[in-house]
Amino acid sequence: MTSPRFNFSIAATDGPARTGTIAMKRGEIRTPAFMPVGTAATVKGMTPDGVRDTGADIILGNTYHLMLRPGAERMARLGGLHEFMGWGRPILTDSGGYQVMSLGDLTKITEEGVAFKSHLDGSRHMLTPERSMEIQRLLGSDIVMAFDECTPFPATHEVADKSMDRSMRWAARSRAGFDSGAEHSAVSALFGIQQGSMFADLRAKSTEKLVEIGFDGYAIGGLAVGEGQDAMFGVLDYAADMLPADRPRYLMGVGKPDDIVGAVERGVDMFDCVLPTRSGRNGQAFTWDGPVNIRNAKHAEDKSPLSADCACPTCTGWSRAYLHHLVKSGEMLGAMLMTGHNLWFYQRLMGGLRDAISGRQLTAYADEFRLRYRGAPSGTPQTD
Amino acid sequence: MTSPRFNFSIAATDGPARTGTIAMKRGEIRTPAFMPVGTAATVKGMTPDGVRDTGADIILGNTYHLMLRPGAERMARLGGLHEFMGWGRPILTDSGGYQVMSLGDLTKITEEGVAFKSHLDGSRHMLTPERSMEIQRLLGSDIVMAFDECTPFPATHEVADKSMDRSMRWAARSRAGFDSGAEHSAVSALFGIQQGSMFADLRAKSTEKLVEIGFDGYAIGGLAVGEGQDAMFGVLDYAADMLPADRPRYLMGVGKPDDIVGAVERGVDMFDCVLPTRSGRNGQAFTWDGPVNIRNAKHAEDKSPLSADCACPTCTGWSRAYLHHLVKSGEMLGAMLMTGHNLWFYQRLMGGLRDAISGRQLTAYADEFRLRYRGAPSGTPQTD
Repeated sequence: MTSPRFNFSIAATDGPARTGTIAMKRGEIRTPAFMPVGTAATVKGMTPDGVRDTGADIILGNTYHLMLRPGAERMARLGGLHEFMGWGRPILTDSGGYQVMSLGDLTKITEEGVAFKSHLDGSRHMLTPERSMEIQRLLGSDIVMAFDECTPFPATHEVADKSMDRSMRWAARSRAGFDSGAEHSAVSALFGIQQGSMFADLRAKSTEKLVEIGFDGYAIGGLAVGEGQDAMFGVLDYAADMLPADRPRYLMGVGKPDDIVGAVERGVDMFDCVLPTRSGRNGQAFTWDGPVNIRNAKHAEDKSPLSADCACPTCTGWSRAYLHHLVKSGEMLGAMLMTGHNLWFYQRLMGGLRDAISGRQLTAYADEFRLRYRGAPSGTPQTD
Repeated sequence: MTSPRFNFSIAATDGPARTGTIAMKRGEIRTPAFMPVGTAATVKGMTPDGVRDTGADIILGNTYHLMLRPGAERMARLGGLHEFMGWGRPILTDSGGYQVMSLGDLTKITEEGVAFKSHLDGSRHMLTPERSMEIQRLLGSDIVMAFDECTPFPATHEVADKSMDRSMRWAARSRAGFDSGAEHSAVSALFGIQQGSMFADLRAKSTEKLVEIGFDGYAIGGLAVGEGQDAMFGVLDYAADMLPADRPRYLMGVGKPDDIVGAVERGVDMFDCVLPTRSGRNGQAFTWDGPVNIRNAKHAEDKSPLSADCACPTCTGWSRAYLHHLVKSGEMLGAMLMTGHNLWFYQRLMGGLRDAISGRQLTAYADEFRLRYRGAPSGTPQTD
């Protein structure tokens, strides 16, 4: 039996929510899945084994960062991203589009693509749908994202429509570019990205075009851009359901734990976010009782773990007092242990959501989570 | 059978060099031993398990740093340094003397002790022999160092004599202070520190006074202060041999790999140095073929490991190209992997020295090491 290129099977549903697995050449991805972000060929402060130990089936790599350093052609000569960083399981790469527009010194967006200067050394680069596909192929990505335009937020209906239209033309070019790399496309998958900002008619139009082109999975783009949780859920209430039921749905760049719970309830299968890793480095831990700022002086002599009911290495090995000391002292180990805990927490949350869907208990699970995490089963989340 | 307080047994000698074990309540220390430095209750970038995996039997903690943050009394309330940081094996703590004089905002040195301001918050503190013993007791140190004065280098015979004399008076007060903590002194050891700068007569006088007071082990202080390897070896040629043969000899703050080899040849049993950890963070790796600066562009596409004959996790898991990328990108994982390799290298070197002494092959081992490491079996070492 040959290993599957991309096989999404849904084992159970509970309302709009689904749980299942994506089978790929490099391993299975249990859904709903959270993908830790490994921007520069490393999940910051973690070894690949450490990331796997948290329960991650797949990680995300950033095309923008990797194309600039070490460079896509160099990465290919080095055997690809998996071999380079020592992570043998699936990797999803973004298209570079979002970050070139947020981090690069943007020169020009045309129908052809995006010209920009590197934030590292000012060197000039061009990203097009074709080049993005080529880079992701050189990296050896398992799940390749179509190259799209990052629609500004907020946007008028007219601006959002034009931007979405361009993204759909770029999606078709991405499909062609991806397919032209026959050897790579035989073992990897391509996801399209639904756009349309906050407008249901545009999301519908975008979906129609994407499905016409045909993708292995569909991402919901243009959210988590500052619209707030209520507005995001408002879009997800219709946007997720528009997408083909038999394909994974990926909400890009999301999010806080309660964002993820609400999105899973609305039918989303995949997530990525820098929050657990970045927050960990900044001294914020996620626990079932809500976020904890370990820098707070009240933790200085607290011998209890970050989270009493957490079995992660950080919580079983060290006290809040020690983590407080490390983080206040700027010690690397503080960032390492906090990051490890946060990734563990996120993966336990995903496991809990999967189990709850399997047992048709998602609403009860989600309400209990919210009640404990933010002191209310629904409504506006606390800001941290 | 009760566990020993402090039992040094020499298994073999080869010329002045010795190999053996120090048995203590928290574990055995194989000598010659290298102690990784865990300044602020953490060996930077390493978990305690990771440190142990490199082969370390004992680590060093810094009294100066720990008394300021988290504070000695707080550490005691938290169960002591071992429990705080999760390292169950022996810990040696320095007296704070060296660092208060090099890092603190020094107010005044008197016969009583040293008054200084914290480099962290400007708060006023006083370190005396009695307070240093108390702090090391509060930390729960296994090997306590006597509090001494850091003799400036270079120093005239007169200055070195006076400074040494004061250090010997402080050594007697350290002994009394240590002994007054009956519960702690029943399970820990106290080392005296030989001073006398570059003067043989002063080193002899210092040794006489220390032996009269009586200590579990003897450190050689006042070296590795900028005198260079030739001058250091010149002192060690006589200074180590002056110390009681049946007690461990500890050369503080040393050193480069070839410093350690030469000092072991001259009869030293214990070492500590920030070099493997600090160099690791700065992109320098130690290998049997000499130091490697991983930032060098020639490593950018080098798929070989740091050291082909190294079995450490870094060398078995990742290429020079990856480490180059991580270090150039300022990624934490770069510092983590480089530090782990360097500590592994140091511990393999210590293991090699112990085996060579056991087999009465130290000269051959040391010459072979030097020939490969710096391209010459003896003479002035390369500077890096």
